[in-house]
Amino acid sequence: MTTSENDLAGLSQLGRHTVQPDNPETATLEKVPSPHRGRDYVVRFTAPEFTSLCPVTGQPDFAHIVIDYIPDEWIVESKSLKLYLTSFRNHGAFHEDCSVSIATRLVEVLNPKWLRIGAYWYPRGGIPIDVFWQTGNAPEGVWIPAQDVPGYRGRG
Amino acid sequence: MTTSENDLAGLSQLGRHTVQPDNPETATLEKVPSPHRGRDYVVRFTAPEFTSLCPVTGQPDFAHIVIDYIPDEWIVESKSLKLYLTSFRNHGAFHEDCSVSIATRLVEVLNPKWLRIGAYWYPRGGIPIDVFWQTGNAPEGVWIPAQDVPGYRGRG
Amino acid sequence: MTTSENDLAGLSQLGRHTVQPDNPETATLEKVPSPHRGRDYVVRFTAPEFTSLCPVTGQPDFAHIVIDYIPDEWIVESKSLKLYLTSFRNHGAFHEDCSVSIATRLVEVLNPKWLRIGAYWYPRGGIPIDVFWQTGNAPEGVWIPAQDVPGYRGRG
Amino acid sequence: MTTSENDLAGLSQLGRHTVQPDNPETATLEKVPSPHRGRDYVVRFTAPEFTSLCPVTGQPDFAHIVIDYIPDEWIVESKSLKLYLTSFRNHGAFHEDCSVSIATRLVEVLNPKWLRIGAYWYPRGGIPIDVFWQTGNAPEGVWIPAQDVPGYRGRG
Amino acid sequence: MTTSENDLAGLSQLGRHTVQPDNPETATLEKVPSPHRGRDYVVRFTAPEFTSLCPVTGQPDFAHIVIDYIPDEWIVESKSLKLYLTSFRNHGAFHEDCSVSIATRLVEVLNPKWLRIGAYWYPRGGIPIDVFWQTGNAPEGVWIPAQDVPGYRGRG
Amino acid sequence: MTTSENDLAGLSQLGRHTVQPDNPETATLEKVPSPHRGRDYVVRFTAPEFTSLCPVTGQPDFAHIVIDYIPDEWIVESKSLKLYLTSFRNHGAFHEDCSVSIATRLVEVLNPKWLRIGAYWYPRGGIPIDVFWQTGNAPEGVWIPAQDVPGYRGRG
Amino acid sequence: MTTSENDLAGLSQLGRHTVQPDNPETATLEKVPSPHRGRDYVVRFTAPEFTSLCPVTGQPDFAHIVIDYIPDEWIVESKSLKLYLTSFRNHGAFHEDCSVSIATRLVEVLNPKWLRIGAYWYPRGGIPIDVFWQTGNAPEGVWIPAQDVPGYRGRG
Amino acid sequence: MTTSENDLAGLSQLGRHTVQPDNPETATLEKVPSPHRGRDYVVRFTAPEFTSLCPVTGQPDFAHIVIDYIPDEWIVESKSLKLYLTSFRNHGAFHEDCSVSIATRLVEVLNPKWLRIGAYWYPRGGIPIDVFWQTGNAPEGVWIPAQDVPGYRGRG
Amino acid sequence: MTTSENDLAGLSQLGRHTVQPDNPETATLEKVPSPHRGRDYVVRFTAPEFTSLCPVTGQPDFAHIVIDYIPDEWIVESKSLKLYLTSFRNHGAFHEDCSVSIATRLVEVLNPKWLRIGAYWYPRGGIPIDVFWQTGNAPEGVWIPAQDVPGYRGRG
Amino acid sequence: MTTSENDLAGLSQLGRHTVQPDNPETATLEKVPSPHRGRDYVVRFTAPEFTSLCPVTGQPDFAHIVIDYIPDEWIVESKSLKLYLTSFRNHGAFHEDCSVSIATRLVEVLNPKWLRIGAYWYPRGGIPIDVFWQTGNAPEGVWIPAQDVPGYRGRG
Ligand SMILES: [Ca+2]
Ligand SMILES: [Ca+2]
Ligand SMILES: [Ca+2]
Ligand SMILES: [Ca+2]
Ligand SMILES: [Ca+2]
Ligand SMILES: [Ca+2]
Ligand SMILES: [Ca+2]
Ligand SMILES: [Ca+2]
Ligand SMILES: [Ca+2]
Ligand SMILES: [Ca+2]
Ligand SMILES: [Ca+2]
Ligand SMILES: [Ca+2]
Ligand SMILES: [Ca+2]
Ligand SMILES: [Ca+2]
Ligand SMILES: [Ca+2]
Ligand SMILES: [Ca+2]
Repeated sequence: MTTSENDLAGLSQLGRHTVQPDNPETATLEKVPSPHRGRDYVVRFTAPEFTSLCPVTGQPDFAHIVIDYIPDEWIVESKSLKLYLTSFRNHGAFHEDCSVSIATRLVEVLNPKWLRIGAYWYPRGGIPIDVFWQTGNAPEGVWIPAQDVPGYRGRG
Repeated sequence: MTTSENDLAGLSQLGRHTVQPDNPETATLEKVPSPHRGRDYVVRFTAPEFTSLCPVTGQPDFAHIVIDYIPDEWIVESKSLKLYLTSFRNHGAFHEDCSVSIATRLVEVLNPKWLRIGAYWYPRGGIPIDVFWQTGNAPEGVWIPAQDVPGYRGRG
Repeated sequence: MTTSENDLAGLSQLGRHTVQPDNPETATLEKVPSPHRGRDYVVRFTAPEFTSLCPVTGQPDFAHIVIDYIPDEWIVESKSLKLYLTSFRNHGAFHEDCSVSIATRLVEVLNPKWLRIGAYWYPRGGIPIDVFWQTGNAPEGVWIPAQDVPGYRGRG
Repeated sequence: MTTSENDLAGLSQLGRHTVQPDNPETATLEKVPSPHRGRDYVVRFTAPEFTSLCPVTGQPDFAHIVIDYIPDEWIVESKSLKLYLTSFRNHGAFHEDCSVSIATRLVEVLNPKWLRIGAYWYPRGGIPIDVFWQTGNAPEGVWIPAQDVPGYRGRG
Repeated sequence: MTTSENDLAGLSQLGRHTVQPDNPETATLEKVPSPHRGRDYVVRFTAPEFTSLCPVTGQPDFAHIVIDYIPDEWIVESKSLKLYLTSFRNHGAFHEDCSVSIATRLVEVLNPKWLRIGAYWYPRGGIPIDVFWQTGNAPEGVWIPAQDVPGYRGRG
Repeated sequence: MTTSENDLAGLSQLGRHTVQPDNPETATLEKVPSPHRGRDYVVRFTAPEFTSLCPVTGQPDFAHIVIDYIPDEWIVESKSLKLYLTSFRNHGAFHEDCSVSIATRLVEVLNPKWLRIGAYWYPRGGIPIDVFWQTGNAPEGVWIPAQDVPGYRGRG
Repeated sequence: MTTSENDLAGLSQLGRHTVQPDNPETATLEKVPSPHRGRDYVVRFTAPEFTSLCPVTGQPDFAHIVIDYIPDEWIVESKSLKLYLTSFRNHGAFHEDCSVSIATRLVEVLNPKWLRIGAYWYPRGGIPIDVFWQTGNAPEGVWIPAQDVPGYRGRG
Repeated sequence: MTTSENDLAGLSQLGRHTVQPDNPETATLEKVPSPHRGRDYVVRFTAPEFTSLCPVTGQPDFAHIVIDYIPDEWIVESKSLKLYLTSFRNHGAFHEDCSVSIATRLVEVLNPKWLRIGAYWYPRGGIPIDVFWQTGNAPEGVWIPAQDVPGYRGRG
Repeated sequence: MTTSENDLAGLSQLGRHTVQPDNPETATLEKVPSPHRGRDYVVRFTAPEFTSLCPVTGQPDFAHIVIDYIPDEWIVESKSLKLYLTSFRNHGAFHEDCSVSIATRLVEVLNPKWLRIGAYWYPRGGIPIDVFWQTGNAPEGVWIPAQDVPGYRGRG
Repeated sequence: MTTSENDLAGLSQLGRHTVQPDNPETATLEKVPSPHRGRDYVVRFTAPEFTSLCPVTGQPDFAHIVIDYIPDEWIVESKSLKLYLTSFRNHGAFHEDCSVSIATRLVEVLNPKWLRIGAYWYPRGGIPIDVFWQTGNAPEGVWIPAQDVPGYRGRG
């Protein structure tokens, strides 16, 4: 079972002119039917261009974000995911909060069999924070490679 | 039990002049008997020269693909695998769909004890997609090293 | 459940002028409510700027420290963590002792579901010491990536 | 001749609460006297957290930026440099234009003996653009190490 | 002098629906005025998604291509460059020939102060070919970092 | 129990002038008693200088080979292993066949508690083949680090 | 429970002038009470400056050695460990034998809960030998990172 | 001026069944007209699959070889180069001698404007030998990137 | 002319119990005669364990420092250099100032033929500062390798 | 002009049983005629297995040593070089002294057109020393790649 034109009907953003959503609440995450329903495959998105604001100081924060999930009925439409991530640009949130919230939103929209997020934040005060969350153990027999993002090393 | 000349009889592509197949449907995946039947070894193919087309825009997509499998009766003849992968050059398919389809075709032809594919697509919209699928848990006692393809890091 | 302003009330260091604490005893580790209580996520701090003193010779020691933990009710406030780590600057302790003590203090303050520390000390006498400790097995279904700090290689 | 308190007088941003400037025009780049006037040393700033907007589509662009300069009378005050770079967050400019403009502004403010910028933009359409500019040959006898930012490699 | 809307008038491909050109001859390389005329800056394009055909066997070839140039009056419009490079997909040419031809075409269109190309072809027969060409010595006082593409190492 | 002179008696190659064996059949793999019988340690040989011939075309093939084993009574004498591997220089065999055959021969000679081979062949047709085989699950409580040979990445 | 002065009483080498021991038998491995008895932490020593002699030819051998252990009552005093390792400088032993012997001696002195050694020998005859041994499965709930020493790659 | 069919006439090996030459003397290096005569471009061949024999012991030697040259009238036909390099398989020569001889032969056949060879031999006796030779200074205005083959590092 | 015992007479710190100097002014940099006077060799010190204080906030700063020099009559005694660098631990200085001051002091003490310092500071505000200074062009015919300290890359 | 049997006559160590020389004075560096006299090629030896003693404390020192030279009439016989380097095993010398002495000895024996040594010593007191010396500018038109030994980075 592969992706058909029908599967793409009803999408409001893919292949169209779109406006950058102002914040995560107004961003629309869209989905299409998984092309190989019944097969437990993993999809990984790597988003090194993530930025949000510090809720206390208003200063920009940056993160390298990697999302892995196993679709059930749906896969996320990738342009809408990009716009969703972009919508944090003027949004204030703490690192731990922001990272888990992105995953939560994806889980609500996709209802995947499993999902995890790794958020690798740029250092503040010399000490970067990474946040790792998953919905729980993955289903048996699924292959999920390590994200293997290099650790922060300071200098030298 | 090693490979004999008999094992290679009936192959239409190995050691012959061949024409590039136009699309995956017309490509012929060929197989030869596994040289060590009864032994559960893993064969890994690394194909960094994969390209297909976007089914919506017709623009080229690129991927670095790694395939691992445990033969049962058959191993794939490697020249036919190369021609099969090359046949996607003018074929349109979404990343998730295309990746799992390659694995599916190999499973049909080889009926292996186990197979997995890792497809590491070049970024579009700044966010690359990786797809990971396997037929299920590998048989007990087989050694399958990590694919360990470096993650996408953006710049810097 | 995300972080609210209430959660930050009572903090004495975040967003304020602070004095460097003289030693670990006088440093105040502060905490705020975990923004996603009920979710077992991992927080990683990477602190490559750690220094303390050798208790025998008084000479400076250096370490690259990585802390992973799963919050229960609380997360550590990161500025207070930084000040706490800084407070070892004029404190004398052996490598094994110092490394486990940091983790112990964090456990006392946060009462996390799980915590581990990796302390990668700079070589003395040509032989660096690394210390690894965790509170025990992590809860089921939580994702904890490897710390993956490169080993010491000498020269060449 | 080292930095004295006098040198810091008149600074409006260092050690004070500051507001993020809205755009490069309203940002104030400040300077302090070079601490070793008469010595031709090089100062390098590495700013991997740069982001601006595409002037055509309004979509975010990202860059890793490295600036090298040889002070004459002045060095740039680093907090003001950070705020200046941050001020591009909602500013639209093409890659080539934006990169050279940053350098131009620094030259106007500092009137350095020499300055160069390397701007390593994240890929768009699969092809990243890097921009390199310097004010001309550096003065004789000054040591300027290579910036040595890794090239973009796609995947694999 | 920065890029104005006028500079973009007359472009036929940027921001428009475009058809993939069939071959390099029918591809249209477009240009816009250099935003900082009078300044000798370097623009680098890194194109790891290049593919053409072997003129003898018709089999696909792949290359990682890096182009550096110093604009005089014009810079190349990057979408048209992408389409130009894509147009080699069904074009047959030897490695040495193809690499220098791309540079030649760019020189004809842009008449730059200086240009070079590094083409790093994937191995055939176990031995990759790299081709390096430049229009001659670069103008004095321009900074041109090394391309620093890792060499082919085989395995291990 | 360490290695004694008695253990080395009867060796025909170690410390002697030897002739290169012509093919694997005439090569003599020799063994000495394991110095710590009763202890399940792992021995790893890394042989990046392996070459054989393609059985169809007669052209040279190259591989980077890593062998891990847990001795029972015997360890292989390393000079004889080297000569055995060298004996494939003019021997024709397919990748899968050759890799598993080497392991098979070692198992026959040493009768180890466990053995595995990783054979990382240089690319042919742009696609390298790796072969991984082990005799089954290793005994409980033995430490066997990953071989961690970098994957083939093509260019760029 | 941290390290006290009492714990260091009775040490003959730490903080004193010492003579290099001539061979492993005359070297004195000393120990101090574990500072956090009751806690199962791991201590890693990385010793890239190890050298011994070939027992057959008398030629120097070199190794990069990594030791991990979980203390029970005692930790090894690190200066004495260094002197112990140095004592192999004029000692002849085969690779497998020497590696396991070092671990054996440490086990005798420390009686640790668990210990392992990885000995990564420099190549002889083009083929390096690595030896890996541990005392058995580690206690439950202890964190033991991979040693992750890069494999030998030959050249290129 | 690009490559025409005429240019390929008279080649005896390209696109034909060929026999492995027995030794360098019987190997035929063939050439075709340079496709862009008048342009000083550099061609780099990277050959990590080189092997020859030690003239004293008859044991195999291995090298990673990189050749750079600037064609005058001719470029080398790459299949013939491969066969030429393969012809050293059973040929005995010292490292310094063998490396310079390969370059000498290419110079005789191609009469290039400039040529250099870097031969990076695998270690013998723990000490690898590299040999670097060029025909002299390259012509002015030609771009020749560093070969940048990683040095031998031993272990660790 | 090599180092004799006489050369070491008069040293107050080497091979003696020493007290950590409180600040750079009270630290004593000592020197011994250059062992090969008349030969222009380069000595490089790599000091990744440098820390000082911010003169404004009193917070710790960290740097990785590399010093290269060509001795004239004297070389610096390395233990005194270590103690000198350690003496900045409680000393406040700006990055540019501190870096050049260290070099200045060494020049005063050693009067070398040439000296340079590279100071690679840990990021503050997300933007690390590097400082590079040398006394001028090195004497002709001296070999001075690049320091080649990796640039700061943020995350990902 | 290649190496003949005559060239090897008179060698006392190559291909013979040899005794380890006790110290550098008793070691015999041997030479053979350069196989391509009249050609200015560079020979590089990489010796990561160097060890000597500290002349003050008698403790072992370690270094990774790289030697480059351009032969005139003679090349060094590599087995004798290995034995010469091994002869420092029980020899005491300071880093600067020892490094330049090795080069001096080679110059005396070979009278090369040019020679340089890079000695990369393992850290002592947390600060490694590198020593770089060459005989002066190399002859015109000779290609001498960078040694490119990675710098010491401490931890992290
Ligand atoms: Ca892209
Ligand atoms: Ca990895
Ligand atoms: Ca040390
Ligand atoms: Ca890793
Ligand atoms: Ca090493
Ligand atoms: Ca190939
Ligand atoms: Ca490089
Ligand atoms: Ca690639
Ligand atoms: Ca690894
Ligand atoms: Ca290799
Ligand atoms: Ca060797
Ligand atoms: Ca920071
Ligand atoms: Ca570099
Ligand atoms: Ca980055
Ligand atoms: Ca390099
Ligand atoms: Ca570091």
